[in-house]
Amino acid sequence: MEVAVLAHEKFPERAKTAVGVIRYGDYDVTAVLDRERAGGQVAEYVPGAPDAPIVEGMDDVEEADALLIGIAPIGGGFEESWREDVENALSRGCDVISGLHYFLSEDPEFVELAEENDCELWDVRKPDDDLTVSQGVAKEVDAEVILTVGTDCSVGKMTVSLELARAAQEQGVDAAFIPTGQTGIMIEGWGNPIDRVVSDFTAGAVEEMILEKGDEHDYLFVEGQGTIIHPAYSAVTCGILHGAMPDQLVLCHAAGREAIHGYEEFEIPPMEEYVDLYEGLAAPVHGTEVAAGALNTVDIVDEGPARDAIDEYGSDLGVPATDPVRFGADELLEALL
Amino acid sequence: MEVAVLAHEKFPERAKTAVGVIRYGDYDVTAVLDRERAGGQVAEYVPGAPDAPIVEGMDDVEEADALLIGIAPIGGGFEESWREDVENALSRGCDVISGLHYFLSEDPEFVELAEENDCELWDVRKPDDDLTVSQGVAKEVDAEVILTVGTDCSVGKMTVSLELARAAQEQGVDAAFIPTGQTGIMIEGWGNPIDRVVSDFTAGAVEEMILEKGDEHDYLFVEGQGTIIHPAYSAVTCGILHGAMPDQLVLCHAAGREAIHGYEEFEIPPMEEYVDLYEGLAAPVHGTEVAAGALNTVDIVDEGPARDAIDEYGSDLGVPATDPVRFGADELLEALL
Repeated sequence: MEVAVLAHEKFPERAKTAVGVIRYGDYDVTAVLDRERAGGQVAEYVPGAPDAPIVEGMDDVEEADALLIGIAPIGGGFEESWREDVENALSRGCDVISGLHYFLSEDPEFVELAEENDCELWDVRKPDDDLTVSQGVAKEVDAEVILTVGTDCSVGKMTVSLELARAAQEQGVDAAFIPTGQTGIMIEGWGNPIDRVVSDFTAGAVEEMILEKGDEHDYLFVEGQGTIIHPAYSAVTCGILHGAMPDQLVLCHAAGREAIHGYEEFEIPPMEEYVDLYEGLAAPVHGTEVAAGALNTVDIVDEGPARDAIDEYGSDLGVPATDPVRFGADELLEALL
Repeated sequence: MEVAVLAHEKFPERAKTAVGVIRYGDYDVTAVLDRERAGGQVAEYVPGAPDAPIVEGMDDVEEADALLIGIAPIGGGFEESWREDVENALSRGCDVISGLHYFLSEDPEFVELAEENDCELWDVRKPDDDLTVSQGVAKEVDAEVILTVGTDCSVGKMTVSLELARAAQEQGVDAAFIPTGQTGIMIEGWGNPIDRVVSDFTAGAVEEMILEKGDEHDYLFVEGQGTIIHPAYSAVTCGILHGAMPDQLVLCHAAGREAIHGYEEFEIPPMEEYVDLYEGLAAPVHGTEVAAGALNTVDIVDEGPARDAIDEYGSDLGVPATDPVRFGADELLEALL
């Protein structure tokens, strides 16, 4: 399927959905919409990605079956400055795929346009109606469950889980990725958007996916969310930790990050504190341990300093660590499988 | 307002909404519906409560302006065996107040009956549409924020918060109760049902209430939910802990409880572990400490053994402890104010 990806004013650093879909999705990305970077090329910003032009708006997109909203702002609202692009997409018969908290399928104007032009509005973040509370049984599945947990939002938990699952598959291991957020769901085509689930059902929505896939595979790599010390989103993290009942954890961090993203008043504590918190909080429900570390070194240009940062990170955690995007996931897999 | 309280087969031990409303609400309770205990009297089961008959069903209720659903089963579903009572209530012009996850106001049959008879369906657990993510600023209010946290569900967190707020008010202290669950909301007539909020907004929904009331009072007693080690509901607990940014915690426990209620496979860990988990998890967001303990001794008949259990509990925690329902809240207030 050919898709145009909307990422106005945020591509690529603050457009993690866009970049995730470009890197890992099965879509043929024909353009990125970013009015600030229009005229550039995707491959300049996302090394190794299939190239596509960056354009001003939907009018400049030549081919597309769908418009995919590739930004997830704090709060998940809809920016009215995107309305024209969504309207243009629908008018020319494109579906629209969105992971916003604001549901396009409940916007009367979009609904009308979609009906007129026979296209679909897919709100990835709209949870199934049949979710319910956890039964506390995820640990009973055959698969070894490996959860990525983080020191903050946007440190690369989804990417690490995807890289681990794919590297394991390449080694012939029967592994699956369990998506818990809008980008992961867009990439895989299924999954529960945990941050949009009723808070009482947070753990249950994760458990449901573990039970669905856990006897079909040997390893499940579960995409974590947020951080357990996040002033706003820790509930999501906590529900996933207890609902997934992971056997092992991979602690994800971004090199140089010193404060919670968007909540700069809140400092990142020492790494040992995260290990204690995640393991301590998990223990009464299902014992687990941080068995590997993943450090996002995208902001360190040179390889030498990146490797130094990884060494320090691994030594803080006392477990094998690397940047799986930059240096491959094999070292982590050796510790995990 | 005269209300009949539905609590079939669960009154009083497993009907915490019913008992909470009978004890603390401003309603005039005219009957309790419990087909298993029909023929009895409320005062036999809830010492000190205004008396009322326990009846078989709505047909046996003489006077009522509303029927209040006083049970909250695991999962919050609607039991079809209650339908007749709800129908009877609506048919005779009674409003229906419910804290279930299942919204009566979305049940076509109830909606039609309510319209025909000009009555209201109040779903207490339906969250406001304008809730959003936490800004991480609850600590900035003038009031001292005191949160009850628990070793399990149903140990008395709401009751303890209410007893503390009322005892403080009786001492002339400007204190308010912040309701976070269906019973608390029914009692106070306002509040956000945190367990029904979208998980991303869990902390934000608590913060919103703290900001609304925090500059009007000297003390806020926030009703906690669940427990931080609950296999199903810990997300709610975690979001409240970080959203409320409490200055002090009161750890609530039920004497003799050895496993998580309804999840008996999961043991209650030592009390010190709870203290470490709650304080450790709160610290990176807003430092707090367990400053008092509340032990629910309802299952210990004699006063001597109850006092012994309290002494042991206080010594485990290293802070003042009592059962505020049985022995009054003054000892806890001394530690907290």
